[in-house]
Amino acid sequence: MPIRKHRTMALDPVAGNGLLDRRALLRGGTVVAGAMTAGTALTGAAAEPLQNDPWSLEMGSVVPAYQVPSRFEKNVVRTLSNPNNEFRNSHARTPHHLLQGTVTPNGLFFSISHSGLPDIDPAQHKLVIHGLVKQPLVYTVESLSRYPMVTRMHFIECSGNSAPMFSNEPLQVSAQALHGLVANAEWTGVLLSTLLEETGIDPQAKWLLAEGADSLALHRSVPIKKALDDAIIALYQNGERLQPGNGYPMRLLLPGYQGNMNVKHVRRIKLIDQPAMSFFESKTYSQILPGNRMWLFHFTQEVKSFITHPSFGHALKAKGFYEVSGLAYSGNGRIAKVMVSADGGKSWAQAALQEPVLPKAFTRFCAPWRWDGEAAILQSRAWDDAGNVQPTRAEFVAARGQTEKPLSTPLAFPNQHYNSITSWAVDSTGEIKHVYA
Amino acid sequence: MPIRKHRTMALDPVAGNGLLDRRALLRGGTVVAGAMTAGTALTGAAAEPLQNDPWSLEMGSVVPAYQVPSRFEKNVVRTLSNPNNEFRNSHARTPHHLLQGTVTPNGLFFSISHSGLPDIDPAQHKLVIHGLVKQPLVYTVESLSRYPMVTRMHFIECSGNSAPMFSNEPLQVSAQALHGLVANAEWTGVLLSTLLEETGIDPQAKWLLAEGADSLALHRSVPIKKALDDAIIALYQNGERLQPGNGYPMRLLLPGYQGNMNVKHVRRIKLIDQPAMSFFESKTYSQILPGNRMWLFHFTQEVKSFITHPSFGHALKAKGFYEVSGLAYSGNGRIAKVMVSADGGKSWAQAALQEPVLPKAFTRFCAPWRWDGEAAILQSRAWDDAGNVQPTRAEFVAARGQTEKPLSTPLAFPNQHYNSITSWAVDSTGEIKHVYA
Repeated sequence: MPIRKHRTMALDPVAGNGLLDRRALLRGGTVVAGAMTAGTALTGAAAEPLQNDPWSLEMGSVVPAYQVPSRFEKNVVRTLSNPNNEFRNSHARTPHHLLQGTVTPNGLFFSISHSGLPDIDPAQHKLVIHGLVKQPLVYTVESLSRYPMVTRMHFIECSGNSAPMFSNEPLQVSAQALHGLVANAEWTGVLLSTLLEETGIDPQAKWLLAEGADSLALHRSVPIKKALDDAIIALYQNGERLQPGNGYPMRLLLPGYQGNMNVKHVRRIKLIDQPAMSFFESKTYSQILPGNRMWLFHFTQEVKSFITHPSFGHALKAKGFYEVSGLAYSGNGRIAKVMVSADGGKSWAQAALQEPVLPKAFTRFCAPWRWDGEAAILQSRAWDDAGNVQPTRAEFVAARGQTEKPLSTPLAFPNQHYNSITSWAVDSTGEIKHVYA
Repeated sequence: MPIRKHRTMALDPVAGNGLLDRRALLRGGTVVAGAMTAGTALTGAAAEPLQNDPWSLEMGSVVPAYQVPSRFEKNVVRTLSNPNNEFRNSHARTPHHLLQGTVTPNGLFFSISHSGLPDIDPAQHKLVIHGLVKQPLVYTVESLSRYPMVTRMHFIECSGNSAPMFSNEPLQVSAQALHGLVANAEWTGVLLSTLLEETGIDPQAKWLLAEGADSLALHRSVPIKKALDDAIIALYQNGERLQPGNGYPMRLLLPGYQGNMNVKHVRRIKLIDQPAMSFFESKTYSQILPGNRMWLFHFTQEVKSFITHPSFGHALKAKGFYEVSGLAYSGNGRIAKVMVSADGGKSWAQAALQEPVLPKAFTRFCAPWRWDGEAAILQSRAWDDAGNVQPTRAEFVAARGQTEKPLSTPLAFPNQHYNSITSWAVDSTGEIKHVYA
């Protein structure tokens, strides 16, 4: 059969410890597969049991109105910081080490709720736009359904995502524990600029205060410029209505800005002439820096990447070919390039990017790797099309600091906007650890 | 504020019954919104109750490990043809008239099961590739996890989707009932060509027989050319493992080919020299044509579109601006153009397409419309980049036939591959009916 023949070129390593040319993945990785043979040779006996699996011998179960995962996937869930719903906030982290592709399914999309999940009746919910406008207006879910809508793929990331990596010792936890407060979905809703065109804007308005209908009434200040750029009043996530943990029945979506500003259950947008200095912007989500300094209003989630496969929680059971794969994203635009290292940053190979590469959205990268059974350190590093590069850990710590131990709640220590490199060390047994390298 | 000012141009109708230029939607539809004012003017009293909604006054409920929709969305579910799991097939239809965007969430992705949902243990499941190969091989979920994977957005459509439209009288049912056997997701898996490179292919192999592990052992013949083109052994759907109704733990994905061929729970791929003439290809999924003729092996789902908003089940409650929106797709490639009519096809306006426009995937189209309160008939018509155009109903019926009544099970009547235009008639009260026009 006329299958592609360009093995020799692509199987030469292009970086240390067995990283191969990404072109080995072009046209579906046939080059890698041809040399890999992870499939098991078939004998007559091996084929036989296929016919006798119990699920092949009986009528299956009823088809449900709303599908859920197989019972064999019961461990593929969000990890919860407050499973008994005590009177404090609740983090639910996305299991990136168990997922693939770029869309995060709604069931597993991360969420942080500060006062539980409000049980909002969408027929009663209202969004008021008032303050420094020409005509204050009220919108309902139904009235918004008549407006022009946009559909866009965007990630949302809590600015406290990866905070465990501010620890001065690497924690032995999964990508879910380290990076589970970011996720990616297709959002559909009405551009906020459309509604502000309707209310009109007083020239004195420079900011807006967005407030949620949860009982904390979470509120954040947003520059008017962002509101008129790509801000969306989102009504749908991956095609269906937002789920309660992600802002039902409507949320403010600020592509690329820190998660907390994407106010869920949004009920009020007040145009104002200066930031409101609310709790979350003046304290919790301020960026604490070395030398008793602090950044206020550091909104954009900077360029970042991390390897999900293989990573902590996986194990390599045999030498040979693997695909190294992970997620890259930037609040400043599209991912331009991802480099992967298998020797802790001494040498790098360019990863392939799954298309389409969309702005302010997850991009899945992958690189072919031939593990020779020796110790290796896997890393990824991303560049965005605005010219930003993910910093090394040394660069990042010098600029942003670190702490003696990771913090579960924000205090007067650096804990925001971590975007440096994650390193997974593979030892000769195939075990994977989290290291700083 | 410096918001775009180009109202005059875009608010002139470009087609009958109030269809406006799609450029009115560019940059977020501010032009339309500026003229629409569907928001309600705010008085002091109107703002007051916002503070007193019950969900704003108490701690909310616990955050779950796997999210589900709000209880207020309990009607946004798949409709089931066999809710008591009788010993026959089960259709579960996607509620497109209640969804938005282009991704179908996994919970609502359509499914057809011929013998219920098998409860497959992924640690026991095997995929055998044998027959006219050089070396038969067995794959497991775990061994496939080492292979290069691709991530691609694709629709799957049952070739019996829209079969109710073969009826010679229009049925008064929703887009879910008419077109609910198509859906769109991001799939991740291993290209079948990668595995066939590994097994090798005997030059005599022209087809393959794919067989599922359900108790029906559903099996279909697929041309080798398709297998080497873009066929995928899919393991993930929208980031998480396939759900049981969609092929857990692995399915054959044949982008653009009729749904039944995308064999779920695939356990065996046998390379053969001619099609197997299985039940589903020689009978059920044959295309019955006028004049006692029939097409065998009519695999590709042809270019199609339908309006989801507004559609049967919705009602227009006031005159003025609406966004007409729907889905377009083609098994032959990308959508090139969608035209929308509000006067039953007498005149047409070009719709805007939500980007990215991907091959063999849903594209959401939208068109601004100013309803004047008179009777109107809404239609959409799609073109693909392979040069195909969605046929008018007259063209389609002449070539493919129609029946006296719609059929719930396939018999000797035309019932496959309906891809003509859907027409929604709006009367002066805002009620919407399904008509043929």
